[in-house]
Amino acid sequence: MALLHDDRLFPADPTTRDIARRLYATVRNLPIISPHGHTNAGWFTSNEAFPDPAKLFIQPDHYVHRMLYSQGVRLEDLEIGKPVIENPRAVWHIFAKHYYLFRGTPSRLWLDYAFQEHFGMTERLSEKTADLYFDTISEKLATPEFRPRALFESFKMEVLATTDAATDPLTDIQALRAGDWKGRIIPTFRPDSVVDPEFAGFLENLDKLGQISNEDTSTWKGYLNALRKQRERFKSLGATATDHGHPTARTADLDEEECAALFATVLNGEADEDDAEIFRAQMLTEMAKMSVEDGLVMQIHPGSMRNHNLEIFENFGRDMGADIPTATDYVHALQPMLDIVGNERDLTIILFTLDETAFSRELAPLAGHYPALRLGPPWWFHDSFEGMMRFRETATETAGFYNTVGFNDDTRAFLSIPARHDVARRTDCAFLARLVAEHRLEEDEAFTLAQDLTVNLVRSAYKL
Amino acid sequence: MALLHDDRLFPADPTTRDIARRLYATVRNLPIISPHGHTNAGWFTSNEAFPDPAKLFIQPDHYVHRMLYSQGVRLEDLEIGKPVIENPRAVWHIFAKHYYLFRGTPSRLWLDYAFQEHFGMTERLSEKTADLYFDTISEKLATPEFRPRALFESFKMEVLATTDAATDPLTDIQALRAGDWKGRIIPTFRPDSVVDPEFAGFLENLDKLGQISNEDTSTWKGYLNALRKQRERFKSLGATATDHGHPTARTADLDEEECAALFATVLNGEADEDDAEIFRAQMLTEMAKMSVEDGLVMQIHPGSMRNHNLEIFENFGRDMGADIPTATDYVHALQPMLDIVGNERDLTIILFTLDETAFSRELAPLAGHYPALRLGPPWWFHDSFEGMMRFRETATETAGFYNTVGFNDDTRAFLSIPARHDVARRTDCAFLARLVAEHRLEEDEAFTLAQDLTVNLVRSAYKL
Amino acid sequence: MALLHDDRLFPADPTTRDIARRLYATVRNLPIISPHGHTNAGWFTSNEAFPDPAKLFIQPDHYVHRMLYSQGVRLEDLEIGKPVIENPRAVWHIFAKHYYLFRGTPSRLWLDYAFQEHFGMTERLSEKTADLYFDTISEKLATPEFRPRALFESFKMEVLATTDAATDPLTDIQALRAGDWKGRIIPTFRPDSVVDPEFAGFLENLDKLGQISNEDTSTWKGYLNALRKQRERFKSLGATATDHGHPTARTADLDEEECAALFATVLNGEADEDDAEIFRAQMLTEMAKMSVEDGLVMQIHPGSMRNHNLEIFENFGRDMGADIPTATDYVHALQPMLDIVGNERDLTIILFTLDETAFSRELAPLAGHYPALRLGPPWWFHDSFEGMMRFRETATETAGFYNTVGFNDDTRAFLSIPARHDVARRTDCAFLARLVAEHRLEEDEAFTLAQDLTVNLVRSAYKL
Repeated sequence: MALLHDDRLFPADPTTRDIARRLYATVRNLPIISPHGHTNAGWFTSNEAFPDPAKLFIQPDHYVHRMLYSQGVRLEDLEIGKPVIENPRAVWHIFAKHYYLFRGTPSRLWLDYAFQEHFGMTERLSEKTADLYFDTISEKLATPEFRPRALFESFKMEVLATTDAATDPLTDIQALRAGDWKGRIIPTFRPDSVVDPEFAGFLENLDKLGQISNEDTSTWKGYLNALRKQRERFKSLGATATDHGHPTARTADLDEEECAALFATVLNGEADEDDAEIFRAQMLTEMAKMSVEDGLVMQIHPGSMRNHNLEIFENFGRDMGADIPTATDYVHALQPMLDIVGNERDLTIILFTLDETAFSRELAPLAGHYPALRLGPPWWFHDSFEGMMRFRETATETAGFYNTVGFNDDTRAFLSIPARHDVARRTDCAFLARLVAEHRLEEDEAFTLAQDLTVNLVRSAYKL
Repeated sequence: MALLHDDRLFPADPTTRDIARRLYATVRNLPIISPHGHTNAGWFTSNEAFPDPAKLFIQPDHYVHRMLYSQGVRLEDLEIGKPVIENPRAVWHIFAKHYYLFRGTPSRLWLDYAFQEHFGMTERLSEKTADLYFDTISEKLATPEFRPRALFESFKMEVLATTDAATDPLTDIQALRAGDWKGRIIPTFRPDSVVDPEFAGFLENLDKLGQISNEDTSTWKGYLNALRKQRERFKSLGATATDHGHPTARTADLDEEECAALFATVLNGEADEDDAEIFRAQMLTEMAKMSVEDGLVMQIHPGSMRNHNLEIFENFGRDMGADIPTATDYVHALQPMLDIVGNERDLTIILFTLDETAFSRELAPLAGHYPALRLGPPWWFHDSFEGMMRFRETATETAGFYNTVGFNDDTRAFLSIPARHDVARRTDCAFLARLVAEHRLEEDEAFTLAQDLTVNLVRSAYKL
Repeated sequence: MALLHDDRLFPADPTTRDIARRLYATVRNLPIISPHGHTNAGWFTSNEAFPDPAKLFIQPDHYVHRMLYSQGVRLEDLEIGKPVIENPRAVWHIFAKHYYLFRGTPSRLWLDYAFQEHFGMTERLSEKTADLYFDTISEKLATPEFRPRALFESFKMEVLATTDAATDPLTDIQALRAGDWKGRIIPTFRPDSVVDPEFAGFLENLDKLGQISNEDTSTWKGYLNALRKQRERFKSLGATATDHGHPTARTADLDEEECAALFATVLNGEADEDDAEIFRAQMLTEMAKMSVEDGLVMQIHPGSMRNHNLEIFENFGRDMGADIPTATDYVHALQPMLDIVGNERDLTIILFTLDETAFSRELAPLAGHYPALRLGPPWWFHDSFEGMMRFRETATETAGFYNTVGFNDDTRAFLSIPARHDVARRTDCAFLARLVAEHRLEEDEAFTLAQDLTVNLVRSAYKL
C-alpha cells in the first residue's frame, strides 16, 4: 500500500503515459538545484534536529494554515507565531482531522510525498492515524539521518539559495563557508527593506545599511554605494542573484538630480504613496544597472498585496497566508528599465507573476524578444500541477522553452523540497509527453528538453 | 435513437471515462437543490399549465434569443416581450430553423435534455421536425403531469429559491406556505432596487420600502431599520440568503456621520456617479453586518454591465441578453468589508464572477484564507462544461473543494433545471475522474467528493 | 523519414484521433482563402524568383528573428533591414544553429511544413544540415515552379488579400487586374496612417490623401469625403474589407461640431495624447458608418503597444518583433460605436484581440448578442495550436461557431501560408473531434462544421 501512485500526474492516455514515464525516468534522480527559496541557513550551521512534526510541517507552511483558517480553524489553536509549540500533538490532531480539506491541492501531494518517502507512512493521514503519524515522525526526527545536513545530502541537493535582507550580516552563511561541511548554501540579495519607503522600519533600515557598509546613506550617492557594497559582500559569500518583491512591476528612469530630490523627500518622511511608488520604481532600475556591473541575476516578484487581512497582520504579523495577488501590468511598467538594460545580452532579469493572464499576453512576448529577460516558473499559488501546465501551455509557443529557467521551490518548508521538485519534474514530463504524443515535438528532443528544464536551464540562468 | 449519449461530457480516455461513469451513477438521481434562481413562485401558486412551447423555451431564455438575435433574427419576430405569444408556431419555426447555431453551446445540451427526457423526442430539432416538436410539446403541456407542481415533484426538487426585490410582498410565497402543497419554495432577499441610487425608480422604491416596513426611510437609521425588518420578513418566509447584483465588487467602511450625509445626498437626488458607487459600496458592508446579525447567507454577483445595447433596452427593457461582463477587481474592492466581517466564522459570503481570470488570481486566494468567504459556482456565460472545468482547474488547487458551494442553476427557464444540474454533475464527475486517473486523488475520496459537491456543500453553505 | 507526422496536432486518445483524422481528410485539400495578410502584391506583378533562403524565411518573419534576438543573436548578424542580404549562407547558418530554440513553437511547425512539403527535406534543420538546406532551397527557388504565381496556384489559393495604406496607389493590384493572370489578389483598406494623429508623418499623409482623392483634407467634411472616395477606389479594385490597428478599442460618438473642432486641433498639431485617442476613437465610428454605406467589412485589431524596444525601433524601424500586447477593454470601449451601428444586420465588424482573457469575458458575450459583430480568429502570438484551442474553448459556448469567421494567416511570409492554414485546419478538427468523442456534438454536425470553419464562414463573413 502507498500514499502515492508511481504514475501520478501523468496523462491517463496509455501512449502518452508511457512517454511520460520514460522521460521521467531520466530526470527523477537528477540533483536538486534550488536557486530561490526561504529556508534558514541557521539550520545547517547548528545542524540541530527539527523539534516536532507540528513545527516541521504546519507552522512554517502558510499553504497549510491558510486553508485550515479558511475553514474556521483558529490560528491560536495551531499555535501559529509561537517560538516553541507547547502542545504539538494537539496541533497535529487538528491538522489530521482537517486533512481532507487538502484534497486536490498541491499541499496534499507535497505532504503525502514527505510522509511516504521520508517517514515511510503507508496509510492516509486522518484523525485515526494522527498519533501513528505523530509518533513515527517524532521518532525519526530524533535520529541523525534527519538532521538538516544529513537531509540536505540525502535529498541530493547541489545548491540551496536562501533569501536575505540587504542588511543581513549573513553570519550563518559565513560560518558554513568557514566550516568543513561541503553543502552549498548561498545567499540571495533582497533589498526590499531598504528600497521600499513603505517597508516597516525603512529609515532605521537605511541607518543599519549605512553602518554595515560604512557609507553615508543620507545622500543619494552614498546610498547607492552602500547598496553596491552589500551586493559585493553577498557575491563574495556565494550569491549569484538578487530578488525584488514589489507591489507592482513599475520601473522608472529619473535623472540624477530627480533621484537625489526624491531620495531627500523619502528621507524626510514626506513621501506620499506616489513618491514611494516612484522611488521603488527607480530603485528597480538602479538594481538592474548594478546587475549589469556586477553580474548578479535579477529576480522580480511583483503583484502581491501584502497583509490583506488587517486583524491577522496585527495579531500574527507578516507572511501568515493573507497576501493576495492583484492584476499586474508589465508592458508599460517595465519599459523605462528595459529602455536602459533590456538589450544587454549578459544581463539576466527573471520575471515572475501571480497574474497568470500576463503569461500569454505580456510576459512571453517580452521574454521572447528582449535578450535580458527570462520567465521565472509559476510562483506561489500557481506552483502546482495545473498552474505549471497553464504556464507551459500559455508561454511556450511565444517564448519557447529556452527563455524559461527551470523550477524554484520557493519554500520555507525544508521537508517539502524534494516533493516540490518531484511535482515539477513530473509535470514537465507530462507536458513534454503530450507534445510528443501529438507529434508537436520529436521524442529525442523531449529527452533533451527534460534534462534542460530540470538542470541545465537552472544552472545557466542563475549562473550556478 | 437518442438526442443525447449517456456518456456525454465524460473524457474519451476509456479508463477515465469508466471512473466518471461510476462516480456519476452515485449522484445522477440525488435530489435537486436549487439555492439560487429566477423562477416564478406564482407558477406554483396557480399551478396553471405552461401555455405553449415558445412561451416555455424561447421567451424566458435569453441565452436562446441573444444567439438568434446575434445572427440577424429580429426580436419582434420572436414576439419577445409580449405577454401572450400570438403565433407560437411561427416563433417555434424560426427557432427550429436556426437550431444549428447552438452547436457546441450549453443551450443545446440543456434543450436536448429537456426535449428527450421530458418530451420523449428522438430526432434532432430542425425545420423538418419543427411541427412534430411543437405538437408533441403542446400536447404534453396540457396534461396534469406537466403542471408546475407535478414537474417540481418529478424533478425531485428538495428546495427551490426564487430571487425577490426587497419590497416584494411575497404574496405567492405566503400563499404556498399557507397551502397544503409540500414543495419547498423559498425567497431570496435582493435589495438592489433600494440600495443602488442608479436603479430605475430608486426614490419611489425607498418610499415603498418605508411603507411596507413602517419605518421612516428618509433617515439613515430608519432606512437601515427598514432593511433589517424586510430581511426578517424574508427569513420568516423561509429565506436563508440575500443576493446583490452590483456593477463592481466595491465595498466601503464609512463612519455613521459620513453614511448619514451620503444618504442625504442620495435622497436629494444630488448624488453623482461616484457618490452612487460609494453608496452601493457602503451598502454591501451594511448588508454584511446585518448578515452577521441575522445569519442570512450573502451572495455577491458583481461585474455585469447591464443593458449594453441601448436600442434593445429602449424597445424591450431589462434582461434581454444585452448584459456584458467586465473586468472585475476583488482584492482591493472587498477589503473594507472584509476588514470588518472577513474573519467571522459564522458568516458566509459567496462570491461570484463573470471575469474568470479572477479565480486563480484573486478569488481562490481570498476564499482559501478568509473564514467568511466561499466561491460560488461559474456564473451565467460560464455555467457550461468548459466554464465549470476551468473553474475547478483554476480554483481547486488554491481554495480546495471545501471552499466551494455546489451548483446554482440560476435560471428563469424552469424546464432547464434538471438539464443544468445534470451537466454540472457530469462535469464534476469528469473532473474528479481525471484527478483519479492521474492519481492526484484516491478513488474513495472522489466518491465522497461527488456527494459533497452535489448536495452536502450546497446544504451547508446555504443553510438548507 | 519525415519532418512531420501525419497525425500531428491530433489528440492522442485513439478514438478521438480517429475522428480527427476523418474530419481532416475532408478539409485538407480545400482551397486556401486568405482574407487578411501582409504579403506583397508586387511579387505577383513582377513574378520574380525569391532571391535566397534567408530572404525568404528569416528576414520577413519577425516570429523567427525575435526568438533569435531574445537569445542573444544580433539583428545585424541576421542582416535584418538590409534590402539585399550580402551573406545569406552565413545568416542561414546562424538560424540553423539556433533552430532548437523553436521547439514547441508554431514557427517550428510552419517551417518544417515548408521545408518538407515544398522543398522535400527529410532531416531536421541543424548546423549539420544547414548547407544541405541552403543549397536545396536555393536550387528550387531558381525553378519556374517556385515563382510567386506558380506557388499561388500550387497552394490552391482562391483569394489572397493584401493590406494597404489608404493613400497607396495600388499600382500592383491594378496591374494584376489589367493583366491576364487569373490569381485573385485583392487589397484591404487600412487607414491608420491618416486617422491616427500619432502616426509618423500624419499631416503629410493627409496632404497625400487630399491629392490622391482630389478633396480638401483640411476640412472635416473634405477629409471624410476623401476617405469615402479612397474606400470606393479600393472597392473598385476588389477590396471587401477595411482594417484598423489602433492602440485601444476605444470608439466615440461626437457630434458634427465637436468633430470639426477636434479635427482642427489635430491639424494644428495641438492635439495632446487624449485628443489623439479621442480622434482615433471617433474615426473608428466614422469608418463603421461608412461601412454601413459601402458594405466593406470592418476589421478591428486593437491592443498592441508598438515599438516597445526603443533601441530596435531607432536602428531597425517598425515591425521588428518588439510590439507587445496589452490588456484591452472592449465592453466600454466599443459601446459608443455599437450604439450607432451594433444592431445593423447587414454590417460585419470583425473583432480581434491580443488579450485572450477578453474572449470569454467580453468578446464572446458581445458577438453572441450584436448582429453586427463577429469574432476574428486568434491573432499574432495566439495564432498557434494552444492559442486556437483556447479560442474555441473560451468563445464557442457563448458565441457559438457561427459568430466566428474562419482562419486568417496574417503573414508576411508567403511560403508559410499553406503551413498556417494546415495548422488551423488540424486544430479545428482536433477540437471538433473532442466534442464528438465526448458526445457534445453529433458526428454529422462536426463534418458540416469542419467545412464551415474552413471555407464557408470565411466566404460569407468577408463577402468573398
